[in-house]
Amino acid sequence: MKVILVGANGTIGSKVLGALSAVGHEVIRVGKRTGDFQVDMADRTSVRALYEKIGSFDAVVNASGEVAFAPLAELSTENWSLSISNKLMGQIHLVQEALPFIHEKGSFTLVSGITSEIPIAAGVAATTMNRAIEGFVQASATELPKGLRINVISPNLLKESEAVYGPFFPGFIAVEGSRVAQAFLRSVMGVETGQIIRVF
Amino acid sequence: MKVILVGANGTIGSKVLGALSAVGHEVIRVGKRTGDFQVDMADRTSVRALYEKIGSFDAVVNASGEVAFAPLAELSTENWSLSISNKLMGQIHLVQEALPFIHEKGSFTLVSGITSEIPIAAGVAATTMNRAIEGFVQASATELPKGLRINVISPNLLKESEAVYGPFFPGFIAVEGSRVAQAFLRSVMGVETGQIIRVF
Repeated sequence: MKVILVGANGTIGSKVLGALSAVGHEVIRVGKRTGDFQVDMADRTSVRALYEKIGSFDAVVNASGEVAFAPLAELSTENWSLSISNKLMGQIHLVQEALPFIHEKGSFTLVSGITSEIPIAAGVAATTMNRAIEGFVQASATELPKGLRINVISPNLLKESEAVYGPFFPGFIAVEGSRVAQAFLRSVMGVETGQIIRVF
Repeated sequence: MKVILVGANGTIGSKVLGALSAVGHEVIRVGKRTGDFQVDMADRTSVRALYEKIGSFDAVVNASGEVAFAPLAELSTENWSLSISNKLMGQIHLVQEALPFIHEKGSFTLVSGITSEIPIAAGVAATTMNRAIEGFVQASATELPKGLRINVISPNLLKESEAVYGPFFPGFIAVEGSRVAQAFLRSVMGVETGQIIRVF
């Protein structure tokens, strides 16, 4: 399969890249500044241009999406705007703009996170965006043409990120990035659609 | 209690107005063009100006919030923008800007809808926004100062709207607006917080 992987350079993305490559998929690595192609997910025309350049493909996998962390009282218009543009609309752009290009029976795999269901301090925007993208996936699954599938991976804190983010996730049992990568593989190669695949 | 009711003129809002008034609350009716005060929820400065005019209060109740309905393939940037500005950020503005004004032990009651959990045709943006606002409520509840509470009401299709919207909700059993209004009352006068109060 020809798979577009957005965020291929990130903590999760690099594990997903390894897992997809290991089973023989052709992976097009996309990043904001790195990879085979660059994209600004927040910009719908940038996403369209990406797909026009690549042409056709079997799967879109996203392992990126910025969100702002701040206490509720301090969440600014800019904080919300960044979160919406990236974590929410960025992922929606990746789906909507792919529709004319993606092969029949292709798939989309997006990413949310455990904060969707378990709030953490200063994580109001994260919970809001993660919940939104899960809703988008479940509703979109009922409408997608061409036998396309769509799922969202909701990972716990990663062991690989524990040194940096651990203090924000007290009592959360971090998971190996390689296990999260298998959830992405399950979405790309399996038959599920409209699912929130939790890796808690 | 002094209660600010945004969307007081709408199908749900008018029932909530009746229910709150019936038990003796002072209700400040707010609308986009009607009511005691006007506000454009999508505009954070308009929301701030509303609260500055009213001064202080015990509860904010919202029964409004526009969202775009269109098939996934046709959802435009403008459709998303309208939905985010009103149903999502409009309600978030109502909470964030109230914090300096609302009395201790006060409450917020927002509104989502059954499409949060059950997708309908052309309802991708509705599911996405409803799910987002429920996430916002559940995360915010963990952070609110001054003993403030926050809940979200998720109503089914209303009997009062069945003639117009019924065809979009096949097999949904519509509920009386008066029952939905009691859910709002339960949020305002009860002790719950961080809850999705379903009226299905």
